[in-house]
Amino acid sequence: MADSKPLPSLDWDPVAAEALLRDVFGVVVDEVIWKGTSASEKVCEWKEPEELKQLLDLELRSQGESKEQILERCQAVIRYSVKTCHPRFFNQLFSGLDPHALAGRIVTESLNTSQYTYEIAPVFVLMEEEVLKKLRALVGWSSGDGVFCPGGSISNMYAVNLARYQRFPDCKQKGLRALPPLALFTTKECHYSIKKGAAFLGLGTDSVRVVKADERGKMIPEDLERQISLAEAEGAVPFLVSATSGTTVLGAFDPLEAIADVCQRRGLWLHVDAAWGGSVLLSQTHRHLLDGIQRADSVAWNPHKLLTAGLQCSALLLRDTTNLLKRCHGSQASYLFQQDKFYDVALDTGDKVVQCGRRVDCLKLWLMWKAQGGQGLERRVNQAFALAR
Amino acid sequence: MADSKPLPSLDWDPVAAEALLRDVFGVVVDEVIWKGTSASEKVCEWKEPEELKQLLDLELRSQGESKEQILERCQAVIRYSVKTCHPRFFNQLFSGLDPHALAGRIVTESLNTSQYTYEIAPVFVLMEEEVLKKLRALVGWSSGDGVFCPGGSISNMYAVNLARYQRFPDCKQKGLRALPPLALFTTKECHYSIKKGAAFLGLGTDSVRVVKADERGKMIPEDLERQISLAEAEGAVPFLVSATSGTTVLGAFDPLEAIADVCQRRGLWLHVDAAWGGSVLLSQTHRHLLDGIQRADSVAWNPHKLLTAGLQCSALLLRDTTNLLKRCHGSQASYLFQQDKFYDVALDTGDKVVQCGRRVDCLKLWLMWKAQGGQGLERRVNQAFALAR
Repeated sequence: MADSKPLPSLDWDPVAAEALLRDVFGVVVDEVIWKGTSASEKVCEWKEPEELKQLLDLELRSQGESKEQILERCQAVIRYSVKTCHPRFFNQLFSGLDPHALAGRIVTESLNTSQYTYEIAPVFVLMEEEVLKKLRALVGWSSGDGVFCPGGSISNMYAVNLARYQRFPDCKQKGLRALPPLALFTTKECHYSIKKGAAFLGLGTDSVRVVKADERGKMIPEDLERQISLAEAEGAVPFLVSATSGTTVLGAFDPLEAIADVCQRRGLWLHVDAAWGGSVLLSQTHRHLLDGIQRADSVAWNPHKLLTAGLQCSALLLRDTTNLLKRCHGSQASYLFQQDKFYDVALDTGDKVVQCGRRVDCLKLWLMWKAQGGQGLERRVNQAFALAR
Repeated sequence: MADSKPLPSLDWDPVAAEALLRDVFGVVVDEVIWKGTSASEKVCEWKEPEELKQLLDLELRSQGESKEQILERCQAVIRYSVKTCHPRFFNQLFSGLDPHALAGRIVTESLNTSQYTYEIAPVFVLMEEEVLKKLRALVGWSSGDGVFCPGGSISNMYAVNLARYQRFPDCKQKGLRALPPLALFTTKECHYSIKKGAAFLGLGTDSVRVVKADERGKMIPEDLERQISLAEAEGAVPFLVSATSGTTVLGAFDPLEAIADVCQRRGLWLHVDAAWGGSVLLSQTHRHLLDGIQRADSVAWNPHKLLTAGLQCSALLLRDTTNLLKRCHGSQASYLFQQDKFYDVALDTGDKVVQCGRRVDCLKLWLMWKAQGGQGLERRVNQAFALAR
């Protein structure tokens, strides 16, 4: 039946494609799943940049290459790459490999869709909603909003942008020149994305006021109170505090209850950068480190770190129930977010973000959670704490 | 030899992991590569949201599931997802599937690294540099800078942020309140990310001045000149023009030479949003549509659209050779970007971006290019134009 064959517009042969993909997949299994996780193999076959350039033959040419050459290229890429799944890899805050999460990533890549409307990503729109609901429940919220972002830095920027928009909705149209000078508060132990974000969002790094931390890297709430008063005395309007649950260098957890008290008293947005520490909420034993997080207005949490969901899996969670995300970021582009669709357009989440196309980041976490269960993930977190001791 | 086994910290069994991944991969081959690209199959098995929720059983529970259940879940996810690789899928500006690009994505996901330093991503730091160099050469630049961004919207925001930083370096530290009111220029046919970006960056949507387009959607350079004068008369400082090469709805290409003349005369940054149209540069037949692009200061180009590299593959290209990207976005976080490393720290590209962790987006394009050659990619672009006629 001629109709069962791919249309002529397909410029590749499915038989050859299957053969290629099977071979590449075989290389991945041998080199990453087996050798990459074996303690007797190297974490990385280190080469100096100039030598590595020669070995990889990176130049892009006019002529294509054979399947055999392409396979060799995949092998070389893997050989000279760092095995972040290796048991001796400790360089960064992500590491390890979860086979179910990897399975989810392979399915995600093969489906290659964008997370903006229900009609283009029906499964993933619903799945993202469910995953975010679960993460919010662990924070302690029975309602709210959220979205997956391309990394925790962008999540933190979203929080800052949402806080200023809530306080000064004019900002969206008229810009910061129409507003009084603003001030936000964090410690020097915070992630560098807070300052990067302040610059990118047009606030300027000077708008970030540094609150003192104690010798273990935790924010001192009394100094927060002092810095807020100081900023006000200088004519600035305080609008946000960014507390950190799990600082990058010391792994410190800011005292959220005391910080929330200050924010409540002063009417400030409380953001918790729990990019690293958020996953501790899964552990009955250790979740007390984040006591008070339910009083936050926003939480950044990256399951790609402690939970090894795979880069990137970065949730921004919001307590808000007033559609703040969409009001703040929406542009109502009529060609994409038509309002006369035959389903509930609240499912078209694309206008909640400043991106247009947005990768599917929920499936890898969802599939891993289904396979391990909350119990399995809790064991992983507890084990990480045990190893750290 | 005990040492050849994975360390006890690995909480999964490689034998079981291999079996699971092989089965999931088999499902991908059957359901996506074969059925997904077959004209006799549906693009999507459409379900209403409530029914789909029931079918997917999305809830995340405490108990884990068996391998058989996980496989069924992967099958259901694929069954009810839109097949963007289907020959009858035309909904968005990305579509189609390239097997080599998919192979690159599978390798990328298995290696799971972040694109910030040479020591963590030696292969991909060099590869990104090479791919960006190739794209810049097609623009017409023998030097310059660039970076892959999480989508074209973020690329466009980067361009706006770089342009204002170059003009007013104080902005990074002191914020927009220390600057005069700014104005940027584009047509109403431009992508909605320009306005979203203006809001996010604190400029406000009012800072975006709308230039008239002709009946085919192309910017009218004489009106650009008029709008610039008007903005100046109102006390604003013009700093950037965003031209579009391939508008979202009409596919129009703005006349870059004439726009570049205006920018040169007025001293404005010329950004070209070629997210969709950039790939036309590969075609000897059609690249005249972008004549003048070599005079731009920045270009956003998404090979995930016309070239089907896979979401996301979004390059921001810069003519700049003064390290503007790093000066504008850098924070010199000392724990990540140490300056006393034993290799050239210029290879640590992470401080060029406002993200921290950054996905590897170059391998899929590089591998596809190696396999198809520039010639094969040119055929693909030419075929897309032929089909559009």
